[in-house]
Amino acid sequence: MKTISINRSYGGTQGVYSHVAETTNCEMTFAVFVPPQAENRKCPVLWYLSGLTCTHANVIEKGEYRRAAAEHGIIVVCPDTSPRGEEVADVADDWQIGKGAGFYVDATQAPWSQHYKMYSYITRELPELIAANFSSPDAGADMSRQGIFGHSMGGHGALTIALKNPETFRSCSAFAPIAQPSTADWSNGTLAQYLGEDPANWREYDATLLIEDGKRFPEFLADQGTADQFLDKCNPQALETACANAGIPLTLRMQEGYDHSYYFISSFMADHIAWHAERLK
Amino acid sequence: MKTISINRSYGGTQGVYSHVAETTNCEMTFAVFVPPQAENRKCPVLWYLSGLTCTHANVIEKGEYRRAAAEHGIIVVCPDTSPRGEEVADVADDWQIGKGAGFYVDATQAPWSQHYKMYSYITRELPELIAANFSSPDAGADMSRQGIFGHSMGGHGALTIALKNPETFRSCSAFAPIAQPSTADWSNGTLAQYLGEDPANWREYDATLLIEDGKRFPEFLADQGTADQFLDKCNPQALETACANAGIPLTLRMQEGYDHSYYFISSFMADHIAWHAERLK
Repeated sequence: MKTISINRSYGGTQGVYSHVAETTNCEMTFAVFVPPQAENRKCPVLWYLSGLTCTHANVIEKGEYRRAAAEHGIIVVCPDTSPRGEEVADVADDWQIGKGAGFYVDATQAPWSQHYKMYSYITRELPELIAANFSSPDAGADMSRQGIFGHSMGGHGALTIALKNPETFRSCSAFAPIAQPSTADWSNGTLAQYLGEDPANWREYDATLLIEDGKRFPEFLADQGTADQFLDKCNPQALETACANAGIPLTLRMQEGYDHSYYFISSFMADHIAWHAERLK
Repeated sequence: MKTISINRSYGGTQGVYSHVAETTNCEMTFAVFVPPQAENRKCPVLWYLSGLTCTHANVIEKGEYRRAAAEHGIIVVCPDTSPRGEEVADVADDWQIGKGAGFYVDATQAPWSQHYKMYSYITRELPELIAANFSSPDAGADMSRQGIFGHSMGGHGALTIALKNPETFRSCSAFAPIAQPSTADWSNGTLAQYLGEDPANWREYDATLLIEDGKRFPEFLADQGTADQFLDKCNPQALETACANAGIPLTLRMQEGYDHSYYFISSFMADHIAWHAERLK
């Protein structure tokens, strides 16, 4: 693991690191905020998954999560959204597939399957790296207390990863998640390329269909701006219906006048972190 | 005045605007955050002046000021740091002079004097535009309650502007201000180019020398990181000495391990806004 930068922030440290990842078969960059409390005791780990076009950097610059994370004593890990590098498959001029658009799936189709293994990277390889490098017996990351959240494509990632790994994650929330990526027109074409044309293959990466197929999670919190330019694609009603049918408590807050940007995310970031903190105590 | 963007944030609105400015003889961009309280009552106006290389955008992305501004009901105005445009004089590859380095002075020397009139722009033209566009008899900007703060070059700008306009500004604070720009080696060359070779001409844009020359302000708050890579150039001791000699109360907080970046600024932003709010009530 290489350290790219370390800056003191809110009494803790915001670091950016890179490592050569086996799952994605390339060098990956990620960010970790360590709150002051982690020097002296074990702290929960909260994963933030970013949306389309983002890297680890957007949320560390615009997400405004460090104040609340420092207040509650939570380590926040912010991974990149896709594999990177010249050798990694991409589609020029299409921001909905390829680099910046990993969708947190393990691609099975060429050429994507060579590097696009973001599901395994996020659920297995990066947690092992965090445990190995940010934890000691009495301090640092407590991998037995993890939460996950994210925005848009990353909100979708958080919901699906939580539903498939309820033993790993105690809490899950989302900002404007893509609730049903297998029907949304900015993601179903990408899922077809990553996972093959048969929509049956997409079900394990679709929050609403995972719930339909029996996956469960204790509860979800989701915020959705009413002025979101991608409101129809996010489709919060689909999540609401799926949760209602399954008996999963969902707190869906429609936020009047908010759009899809980090101005929206940052406005409710402290709420989400406090909500996770309560569940990760 | 043109509206470039408006985003809902923390219950208020973060806007970015542009206008053709007479003082700087070019199109200028600036940002205004209007908190929710300003819909129904008059709210104080707090000016944030940015540092070298910045535009209005750095602080709106990384400054984390909106939460506290919304909490305290304060309008925050964030101007650009210099005139802009192809016709504006600049020095290629030198970030300490020209575009992004206006130093909040009115330049008197060619070629700078044609556009570099940031002092007049910030103290006269932009306040008039704010009063005309963000104020009504019963709501919006209360121009009788203004505060000013800033970072580095903008901290210097805030200190000098407050010292020269104590009737306009009730409160002034700074993050890592350049306390004595006429002796700091990243600014004295620029002052010589903007104002002429005679150091006597620089005194009215140097906080410590303004104090030495008799200017007064009720009190200052300043934060300075101990790990600031530009600590010697900021020279907080010079400000401390000048304030001590003049009997101006200065709260100078040396912040252990913090650098010169927005990770430092954002960590103490809420403190500063609360401090201004108390004085702008």
